[in-house]
Amino acid sequence: VTEDALVESIRSIVTSPASRRLRVGIGDDAAAWQPSRSHLSVITTDALIETVHFTRAAMRADDVGHRALAANLSDIAAMGARPILATIAFGISSEVDETWVCDFYRGLAALADRTGTAIAGGDIVRAPVVSISITVVGEVRATSIKTRDGARPGDILAVTGPLGASRAGCEILLDRPDLANDARFADALHAFRRPEPRLRAGRFLGVSRNVHAMMDTSDGIASDLSRMCAASNVGAVLDRLPIAPAAERYCVQCELEQQSFALEAGEDFELLVAIDPRAFGYIAARFRAHTGHALIGIGEVTAETGIRTRAGSLVVARGYDHLTPR
Amino acid sequence: VTEDALVESIRSIVTSPASRRLRVGIGDDAAAWQPSRSHLSVITTDALIETVHFTRAAMRADDVGHRALAANLSDIAAMGARPILATIAFGISSEVDETWVCDFYRGLAALADRTGTAIAGGDIVRAPVVSISITVVGEVRATSIKTRDGARPGDILAVTGPLGASRAGCEILLDRPDLANDARFADALHAFRRPEPRLRAGRFLGVSRNVHAMMDTSDGIASDLSRMCAASNVGAVLDRLPIAPAAERYCVQCELEQQSFALEAGEDFELLVAIDPRAFGYIAARFRAHTGHALIGIGEVTAETGIRTRAGSLVVARGYDHLTPR
Repeated sequence: VTEDALVESIRSIVTSPASRRLRVGIGDDAAAWQPSRSHLSVITTDALIETVHFTRAAMRADDVGHRALAANLSDIAAMGARPILATIAFGISSEVDETWVCDFYRGLAALADRTGTAIAGGDIVRAPVVSISITVVGEVRATSIKTRDGARPGDILAVTGPLGASRAGCEILLDRPDLANDARFADALHAFRRPEPRLRAGRFLGVSRNVHAMMDTSDGIASDLSRMCAASNVGAVLDRLPIAPAAERYCVQCELEQQSFALEAGEDFELLVAIDPRAFGYIAARFRAHTGHALIGIGEVTAETGIRTRAGSLVVARGYDHLTPR
Repeated sequence: VTEDALVESIRSIVTSPASRRLRVGIGDDAAAWQPSRSHLSVITTDALIETVHFTRAAMRADDVGHRALAANLSDIAAMGARPILATIAFGISSEVDETWVCDFYRGLAALADRTGTAIAGGDIVRAPVVSISITVVGEVRATSIKTRDGARPGDILAVTGPLGASRAGCEILLDRPDLANDARFADALHAFRRPEPRLRAGRFLGVSRNVHAMMDTSDGIASDLSRMCAASNVGAVLDRLPIAPAAERYCVQCELEQQSFALEAGEDFELLVAIDPRAFGYIAARFRAHTGHALIGIGEVTAETGIRTRAGSLVVARGYDHLTPR
């Protein structure tokens, strides 16, 4: 299959209503679009490497496509923005055929469609293993953009959902294939394969001036909250973390301590926010009405640096560092 | 080395005056910038895979960084745009150390600085071989954007420089190491290692309404002109192609036919344009005054499809297809 033929196949898969917003789409040297006048553009890039981030044995091509885009969309959500377009650099190994590649793009395109993300092009190259890099551009009103450096002492820390399901699903696929067909863990596997970026939640929270800082929990609370605290020059005390039911069942099954598991659980793609304590009740009520989900308090921002439990012990645990072997 | 530490090293390498244009830079979930009101944004992505696009034996890390960004900037130039920012997805293998990574970013940052491109972030992951994917966003006045689908019968086809030097340099590095220290080929090696994106030329040509179509010659005239003709639903007749002196010397040395060599020579990063014949003389004179380089006519656009020589024989040769083994 030649590059031009493959580009044609992919073009027909990824064309969507959102593509019409592009002034220039797939097939030219670059894509072009007209940004809205009152909005900021945001851009984010994520890479997925076969054997490092996924295996073809454990994940279907369409799930890989979904996850790859979802990771980027989660970053867009964390800025309070909405997605505009994505570009995809795709390294194809000799082990995958056109079916695999097209299934990947189908999984990706379904999520792109549903979230209004236009596929604006990319690059296709040969590689020793499947290597995917996705860049998403979004836009956000200049007054609604949320960064991770605005947390203030006294703020309530909250997450947009319970934690750990995605990590449980990932561990089952990699280390406990005997549990993969157990119905008790179907939710965990789904959470890992089809994570849902919190775009609606992110835009809702972005609009409020009482939300002082926001980021996604892609690396786990331990690591991500450390980064928010470092950027904001604050610390935090943590209450009990909310754990997803499937993750709780997995911890019981494998005799793992649930709070540590939740603390280190990455790739949940929930949002972590620091909210003015006077506004938290009001925002949480409106959040539930708007999204159908609870905004769950997990602790409080402190002037003193370091992350501690309410009992005062230092949380030394770190999240998954992409460059440190697990 | 941890990801956070490496991100800090990289951040200090890539911070430049252009970074100040960013509303949010490296270190948050996404970067943000304020697009100019009267301009379109453009975006392009390119991937470089070790062993496929370069080898660490044949290329220094800073040259790889330069080339990786130059390929994207060439696409930005081909739209008539100027670069705003870049994101970099970097897959690091266990074979490279922090020095290699930082040298890569130094080579990249030097070109970014010189061209006003802010480094806006990216992703760093583990990979079996060094895998680099770069996305560049640029901007262009809505009236100056140039695509490849506007060529009209009668237009003069021209390139912004002689062809083949980069291909000669590449072949010397891969297949003829015995010539690598021969002073006659120093220009060829330099052309391959340090290609110069034609940003100034692209913006100059973008402004003229008599330039009907523009693209870069990254895959070689045979392949790229085929794409321009297909997009514009036209054909072309070709005159003799201008060949770079170092490429000419390489062809003589290796007994290669020069016109075929130039026709198939990719990665030159010159621009290919289709220009109204009544305006060609005026534009070429002003182009020389503005850039110091000649705009070199190579043929003419025809209503009849297919690419032919003046003598009438069909040019069947194709450029380098990234998915077809060479």
